[in-house]
Amino acid sequence: MSQPRKTQRVAFTLRIKSGMGEGYDKRHNPVWPEMLDLLKRSGISNYSIFRRDQQLFLVLECEDFEATWARIEADPINTRWQESMAPYFEPIEPTNPGERFPMFQEVFFMP
Amino acid sequence: MSQPRKTQRVAFTLRIKSGMGEGYDKRHNPVWPEMLDLLKRSGISNYSIFRRDQQLFLVLECEDFEATWARIEADPINTRWQESMAPYFEPIEPTNPGERFPMFQEVFFMP
Repeated sequence: MSQPRKTQRVAFTLRIKSGMGEGYDKRHNPVWPEMLDLLKRSGISNYSIFRRDQQLFLVLECEDFEATWARIEADPINTRWQESMAPYFEPIEPTNPGERFPMFQEVFFMP
Repeated sequence: MSQPRKTQRVAFTLRIKSGMGEGYDKRHNPVWPEMLDLLKRSGISNYSIFRRDQQLFLVLECEDFEATWARIEADPINTRWQESMAPYFEPIEPTNPGERFPMFQEVFFMP
């Protein structure tokens, strides 16, 4: 018997360099079509990126974040995207053991 | 003729006091039914609160955030809720002119 699918809402933070906000925004309007396609076929939906000055807050839905992100990272389209975006980012702040990014936990949800 | 409704995704950050994380989480599991009812009938949906240590990230959908939040703030249920939650919060960090909270801007969305 198949298991019912369980969608997670996943949230994490990243930080961009000072003065790079406007450029970062432009790079996301639009995102490369092939990168959007990779995200979708990897199982991501309702993906928002929010920014306040240098802080980014990323929220998305998927079934298994670690497995999904591993699929994305294995794709050369993502490698090209990440290389092109690398100049915008500050180094990732310290994470907890097992965390890919500084993750937030959902403590409340109201449909 | 009626205008088509336009839902906004709205995001902002708040900060809780050191050591208050677990208590904050418990207060949201569950939230008072009358507070949930107030949020819903004020026009809020898909409201998530995410936490990492002392930082909260709040994301919700509504049509007009300022008008919606003004309705919520005018209700005594919200006054009681906010009074009961006040001990958990750090003072709100400096905001830009016209901002109710430290707001994030959505720079990317993929359905």
